[in-house]
Amino acid sequence: MRFSIVVSTQPASFSAVAYKERLPESLATIKRLGYDGVELAVRDPELINPDELERLLAQFGLPVSALGTGQAYGEEGLSLTHPDAQVRCRAIARLKSHISLASRLKAIVIIGLIRGKRVEGVACDQAETWLQQALEECAAADRSVKLALEPINRYETNLLNSVDESLRFLRRVGAENVGLLLDTFHMNIEEPSILSSIESAGDRLLHVHVADSNRWYPGAGHIDFGGVLTRLDRLGYQGYSSAEILPLPDPDTAAAMAILQLRRCCGLETGGWSDRGAAVIR
Amino acid sequence: MRFSIVVSTQPASFSAVAYKERLPESLATIKRLGYDGVELAVRDPELINPDELERLLAQFGLPVSALGTGQAYGEEGLSLTHPDAQVRCRAIARLKSHISLASRLKAIVIIGLIRGKRVEGVACDQAETWLQQALEECAAADRSVKLALEPINRYETNLLNSVDESLRFLRRVGAENVGLLLDTFHMNIEEPSILSSIESAGDRLLHVHVADSNRWYPGAGHIDFGGVLTRLDRLGYQGYSSAEILPLPDPDTAAAMAILQLRRCCGLETGGWSDRGAAVIR
Repeated sequence: MRFSIVVSTQPASFSAVAYKERLPESLATIKRLGYDGVELAVRDPELINPDELERLLAQFGLPVSALGTGQAYGEEGLSLTHPDAQVRCRAIARLKSHISLASRLKAIVIIGLIRGKRVEGVACDQAETWLQQALEECAAADRSVKLALEPINRYETNLLNSVDESLRFLRRVGAENVGLLLDTFHMNIEEPSILSSIESAGDRLLHVHVADSNRWYPGAGHIDFGGVLTRLDRLGYQGYSSAEILPLPDPDTAAAMAILQLRRCCGLETGGWSDRGAAVIR
Repeated sequence: MRFSIVVSTQPASFSAVAYKERLPESLATIKRLGYDGVELAVRDPELINPDELERLLAQFGLPVSALGTGQAYGEEGLSLTHPDAQVRCRAIARLKSHISLASRLKAIVIIGLIRGKRVEGVACDQAETWLQQALEECAAADRSVKLALEPINRYETNLLNSVDESLRFLRRVGAENVGLLLDTFHMNIEEPSILSSIESAGDRLLHVHVADSNRWYPGAGHIDFGGVLTRLDRLGYQGYSSAEILPLPDPDTAAAMAILQLRRCCGLETGGWSDRGAAVIR
């Protein structure tokens, strides 16, 4: 099992991001804590110098597990299901720009909140058709890049909350490089059984977000991460488990506790590592 | 353990209410299913004929476990922590009207969303002070009526989400007849451990809402209701466990499944009852 943690490449208002500023310092800490990679939340790839980014990532020896795209919706309102065709068009263009960066970084692209919310007056089937068309167009832009659709809890969107709904929707999408992202925080609210839903996702599963029931680091709530990681392992899941967590009580403690608990759940030796974690916490 | 279920006395937009219309028919079904009482969601007691209501309740032999007040916020924006003193004043007046009806019905009054949300620019301490003053004034209006403050998850309000926060706040409130309502759906999101938080609430606990992790009837999600009800029993809790659940897959099935599962969790004989439940479901 490989572990990564979300870092925003720019200041962001979305709360469940451990690190939001000072990218080099954040990457240094993440590497020191023993993470295998980093997930980057990128509002707009145009604002990034990819050479500089690659240099930084190489410096710390951190691959990129996935690119988060939700800030394009959260900060700019770009939505793949907006009733205004121009907004949908700009959202697709933005996503293609993410895909192009992801291709360079060999990362998955996350389809989270950039799908938007179904607004009043738009039928569910219409919204899903727009989303289907957008995903097919984006998936065709570069078949080597995988797109991971994330079921998100009812409070954050009214479009594709559960694994079942999302799997049903994915069957409409004619593209092999589109699959699922499962987030334990959202699953705790939406899934009757977290483990059964992991099972249902099966080989459509491309990426996993780990956050506890209160969106703190694993171990701070009541989700059974031992069970989750064991089930992923048994399914033959080869991707990352990526901590998308609140920076509480502070970013470094959250990051240190997350990997400490995740490794413990895997039965991984945490001695030397745990010392490194403890050094960061205090 | 006594069980009740939420019924709205008027059409309502709030989703987690099993029954929203046709009060007599709803009460008849609830009685037939074997509930011990009913919780009434009342936007404005002035719109109710209390004699008629009492007659109906007596006809079905259903006591009222609690009065929900959140629709006054949801539909009319009345909030105990609104920065506009006139709105706070109207919210307090409304709550006193609920208290007067509750006194007649011997019911608890719920302080849920009527506390409002802390709006931008209002300091947390200021909002809590307004809430404290409002609760002290309302509690003094009739000491025989208990007010139950409900911790509500982060997505619905930014004011008092967890049991810990709410207990800390309650220590500021100088009134013996103010306590806590715990809702298992909210607890699943906010509490590191549902059972430990029930324990912490201890004798401040006045009322319990039962809904599963997905807000469906108990048994449709992953909350351990056997553990919850056992813990309540061990604490000596004498109040109701009241189903505040989504009317899914339909109101009657939701209500029937809720009491079936709750009674099973208590180890109560469900044979005859279950037949009655089955008769309603199909």
